[in-house]
Amino acid sequence: MKILISNDDGIMAPGIRVLKEYLEKEHDVYVVAPDVERSATGHAITIRNPLWAKKISFGNNFFGFAVNGTPADCVKLGLQAIYKDIDFDIVISGINKGANLGTDILYSGTVSAALEGALSGKPSIAVSCIDFNQPNFEDAAKIILDILKKLDPKEIPEFTTLNINVPNIPYDEIKGLKITRQSKRRYNDYFEERKDPYGNSYYWMLGKVIEDDDENYSDYYCARDGFVSITPITVFLTNTDFTIPLKNILGVR
Amino acid sequence: MKILISNDDGIMAPGIRVLKEYLEKEHDVYVVAPDVERSATGHAITIRNPLWAKKISFGNNFFGFAVNGTPADCVKLGLQAIYKDIDFDIVISGINKGANLGTDILYSGTVSAALEGALSGKPSIAVSCIDFNQPNFEDAAKIILDILKKLDPKEIPEFTTLNINVPNIPYDEIKGLKITRQSKRRYNDYFEERKDPYGNSYYWMLGKVIEDDDENYSDYYCARDGFVSITPITVFLTNTDFTIPLKNILGVR
Repeated sequence: MKILISNDDGIMAPGIRVLKEYLEKEHDVYVVAPDVERSATGHAITIRNPLWAKKISFGNNFFGFAVNGTPADCVKLGLQAIYKDIDFDIVISGINKGANLGTDILYSGTVSAALEGALSGKPSIAVSCIDFNQPNFEDAAKIILDILKKLDPKEIPEFTTLNINVPNIPYDEIKGLKITRQSKRRYNDYFEERKDPYGNSYYWMLGKVIEDDDENYSDYYCARDGFVSITPITVFLTNTDFTIPLKNILGVR
Repeated sequence: MKILISNDDGIMAPGIRVLKEYLEKEHDVYVVAPDVERSATGHAITIRNPLWAKKISFGNNFFGFAVNGTPADCVKLGLQAIYKDIDFDIVISGINKGANLGTDILYSGTVSAALEGALSGKPSIAVSCIDFNQPNFEDAAKIILDILKKLDPKEIPEFTTLNINVPNIPYDEIKGLKITRQSKRRYNDYFEERKDPYGNSYYWMLGKVIEDDDENYSDYYCARDGFVSITPITVFLTNTDFTIPLKNILGVR
């Protein structure tokens, strides 16, 4: 397969290097990734400035293009400019350092890069290691290779991404795959107020995870339990459950 | 009602000034908005730097706080720090200059500010004028006041935002409200490649709108047809239609 990869930790991050190394054992892999870390950039894109794409080599080996933009920019630029003559089979974003579970999905540059693939008409996958401190990228990459053996990307519906989170345990101890749903795992954010040398307040954001969604098949619950969590996610956000109640409330047909 | 407002066009933008002016006729309004324009920042948040909040006055009148962050940052900081002692009834983001229809929702800072309200447990609304060049903010603000007369924010379900787009026609010519669904209106993006003075390529993103989703109740279709489009949207992206097929493809329970 022809695979475009990107991430949000930046082109120098170990996660994308391991992903490329493993995918290349069986596929043609092309890299377009942010020049620096762009975590928590959500689905931001660059509209007021142009983008530069710089060739990056490690030693004598060409690795990929580093772009002065967001993860979503990189996927757009990869598909529609740098590699526009290549008919990619799939876009894969990662491997992210740290989980993208529950409402992380909205903030994550990693997931947004994959969703940008879906918006551009390509099947896509976002992959994250749930451990932030000692992520086991090699085993996560093996899991992705396993999944690509079973899954023909053409089977992924239009406008859909697979959000994959891999538990941080050795490959042989992983209990299997689970198809999950995005949980309401979220953050109880608060701000620490400080004073700058001139007496002005400034604020550091801090947050504690709230995991109050322990139903079967919630993403974080399965990942914590030793399964690879695979959540199919869409770019369409309509809350169809509230359509009719809202019509009644507003008295419209 | 106590209303927190924000936007992505920045605190100096006319849309938020008009929104405040109209809402204040009937409600208590508090402003926390980006210090500069932050369009197309999606759901980005600031995690590596602190945030400053600066008091902004127009003439002798205090207007609100300008924050060196994204729209989602502003709502977080407003709810959890600057105005943490106020129990807001609703968060309203806008009035945006230009439509937020179809897949715009993913890129829009305006919509993300409202979704951040929903993530923080507050009912929320995003409001946009569909005309970018000559937006009629006054009439859009009147529509929001009308809607707030009919809608008790407590009736909006948890984790849900109303994404409202107002057609750019005089108030009296608006045909009414329609409860819509997010369409697949999207962009056929492409890049114009140029050379910098040193011979390096750089790229400007351009795009044409693709409107191929003319079903009744698609957001852009109703807005174009002279109705106020109201789409309830959620922070949960699971594509439940693909859960069972994916289980079968991957051979998992």
